Amino acid sequence: MREILEKIAQRVSDDIKALPDSFDLGRDLGPGADGTPTCVIDKVAEDVILGCVKELDLPYNVLSEEAGFIDRAGDMTLVVDPIDGTHNAVLGIPFYSVSLALGKGSMKDVRAGLIRNLVSGEVFFAEKGRGAFRNRKRIKVREFDPARSTFLVYMGMYSHPDTMKVARGSTKTRSLGCASLEMCMVAEGRVDAYYMNCEVHEKSIRVVDIAASALVLREAGGEIVDLGGKYLDMPFDLRSRSNFLAMGDACVKEVVL
Amino acid sequence: MREILEKIAQRVSDDIKALPDSFDLGRDLGPGADGTPTCVIDKVAEDVILGCVKELDLPYNVLSEEAGFIDRAGDMTLVVDPIDGTHNAVLGIPFYSVSLALGKGSMKDVRAGLIRNLVSGEVFFAEKGRGAFRNRKRIKVREFDPARSTFLVYMGMYSHPDTMKVARGSTKTRSLGCASLEMCMVAEGRVDAYYMNCEVHEKSIRVVDIAASALVLREAGGEIVDLGGKYLDMPFDLRSRSNFLAMGDACVKEVVL
Repeated sequence: MREILEKIAQRVSDDIKALPDSFDLGRDLGPGADGTPTCVIDKVAEDVILGCVKELDLPYNVLSEEAGFIDRAGDMTLVVDPIDGTHNAVLGIPFYSVSLALGKGSMKDVRAGLIRNLVSGEVFFAEKGRGAFRNRKRIKVREFDPARSTFLVYMGMYSHPDTMKVARGSTKTRSLGCASLEMCMVAEGRVDAYYMNCEVHEKSIRVVDIAASALVLREAGGEIVDLGGKYLDMPFDLRSRSNFLAMGDACVKEVVL
Repeated sequence: MREILEKIAQRVSDDIKALPDSFDLGRDLGPGADGTPTCVIDKVAEDVILGCVKELDLPYNVLSEEAGFIDRAGDMTLVVDPIDGTHNAVLGIPFYSVSLALGKGSMKDVRAGLIRNLVSGEVFFAEKGRGAFRNRKRIKVREFDPARSTFLVYMGMYSHPDTMKVARGSTKTRSLGCASLEMCMVAEGRVDAYYMNCEVHEKSIRVVDIAASALVLREAGGEIVDLGGKYLDMPFDLRSRSNFLAMGDACVKEVVL
């Protein structure tokens, strides 16, 4: 399973890097299946992935940010965010990824997840029950130490005012604009938590964004919960949205929620 | 002037990149001259710079984050942040820089400033009255369009609650943890503003952090003001701290302050 996901991610990486400098990554192509605007870079990456699935004749359905659900009469579904952090790519912030997960019908039964940082080339991978890895090296979350804490938060026009409380509750705070890689930072114990709290439901996270990184985080010993503190599951459905807290150490929940 | 600053920044870059992977970049060496903790990576970078100044027998005093003011009986002072974004370097967030400015006694009379992104190698440079450049290509700020705005904000334990209002006032918001590079993003028109508002005076910005990038921004057509809206000047003194708004388009001031 790993080989297939790696191959797809590699192809996305190759094709994105081959785009000419003059290419307008951010050109708006109108709304995708999930209703958010599609940029050229999203479309290029998704086309590569859909091309791969066909070419390798993979027995999977596909759920992707832009194209929606593609029924290929498969038993499993490849859940895809072709580019997580599109706006970073457009702005020149070197922090965006492709995110790929394989599962039956919802986040909780995802069997494998892979996230590739499209700038550094780092690959995060997890298979259910077999641990989480960065570039084939096992990763683990860290214990929470309030005196040396770092939280990542979602920030923007729609962030809930509680975000400020969370941001001020840690020694350092960042808002990096790429949920999948931010979750992986929690998984490898670089930071303590990632918090997303949007006031507007349609701006909260979709399953395509975090299906892969939620498995990586859980296999690294962390947890992801909704803002009521309950185990987060999301169906493979682009209409489903959720706020959440991803954390390395369960005690972060007491501090944040 | 450019050649000297470039040479120093290149040496910092070479020496940081030569550090072994096992090197604990974040090891705490106790407080520097400005009172904030010094990490190994700060010390390595500062030693390189001070070594360069001696070796090239530069006729400048030095003001640096860790070492403080070094009087070399010069007419001008090299104002140095050896590593801006130390915590990013330690966390593995690929966004930190070395910042070098040359001037007489305060920010307003800085004659040249150079910031080198220590991950990508990009170099931002400005000389007073001669424009601002990224990798020798002229850069300019952009016009503010509220429908497509991006603000960068300082976020953390000490950020003033007004930060949330600012963060929610733009379409996209990021908090990237490296003031000099965030200012350069404003200068090259990638984003509209960078806002820092700390409740605790000792956590606000120091002249070493922004002496170079303030010149780059101003030479690119932007402005940096204190939170009363006045032209920001800061003396070459580590005790001086300020909150500020850096913007590409002057009308951002009406929106933010």
